Amino acid sequence: MEYAYDDQNIFAKILRGEIPNKTVYENDHALAFEDIAPQAPVHVLIIPKGAYVSLDHFARDASPEEQVGFMQALAEVCRITDVAQGFRSISNTRVHGVQDVPHYHMHILGGRQLGRMLQG
Amino acid sequence: MEYAYDDQNIFAKILRGEIPNKTVYENDHALAFEDIAPQAPVHVLIIPKGAYVSLDHFARDASPEEQVGFMQALAEVCRITDVAQGFRSISNTRVHGVQDVPHYHMHILGGRQLGRMLQG
Repeated sequence: MEYAYDDQNIFAKILRGEIPNKTVYENDHALAFEDIAPQAPVHVLIIPKGAYVSLDHFARDASPEEQVGFMQALAEVCRITDVAQGFRSISNTRVHGVQDVPHYHMHILGGRQLGRMLQG
Repeated sequence: MEYAYDDQNIFAKILRGEIPNKTVYENDHALAFEDIAPQAPVHVLIIPKGAYVSLDHFARDASPEEQVGFMQALAEVCRITDVAQGFRSISNTRVHGVQDVPHYHMHILGGRQLGRMLQG
C-alpha cells in the first residue's frame, strides 16, 4: 500500500504553528491537544510529528523512537486528564473508518460513560 | 495509578493455550486473533503477551520492545486483513470505556462502513 501525505491538512498546519491548538502534552515525537469539537468531557487528540497518513502507515513505517514517543505521550495524556474511571481510544482510517483528517491521530475520550463501541 | 492484573482473564488463558483462538498473526510480543463475536466482516483483537491490564498501563509500563512489537503486529494485521478501504481501531478502558476483558486489547474493525465514532 502507498501512502501519499498531504501537508496542507489541518494537523500539519497545527504542527507548523500556522493554526493554534490547546496543547495538553508534547514531546519530540508527538503532540497532544484538545479536540475543537469535543464529544466527551475529555477529548484529546494525539498525533505523531512525522508525516503519517494513518495508523497502518504509522505502524508500518514509523521508527521505534517515534512509536515509543507516541506511547509515552499517550501515557502522559492519561495521567494529565485523570481518566482513572476509564476512557476509550479510537483511531479512524480511510473511508470505512470515517477518517476526517489525513494525518494519523488517536482520539482519547473520557469523563463520561461512553456506551457501546459501535452503533450498528 | 496501580494496575492489578488478574491472570484468570480469558486472554491470559488464550495466551497460555488453555483456550483456543483463531490466530491471525503472532510475534514475540503480541498475538492477534479473530474476535469470537465479530461486529464487522473484519474484527481482530491484538493483545500484548505481557500482563497489562489496559492501554494506559501498557503505554506507561511496557518496554520499547513490547510497544514496537505490538505496532509491528498491528501493521501485519492490517496487511493480512487487507483493509485498504479503511478500518477503525478501538480500545476500551475500565468503566467509562466499557472494557470487557482486563487485559489490554485493541479492536481492529473493518470490511464495512463503520458509522459515527460514538453513539451519543
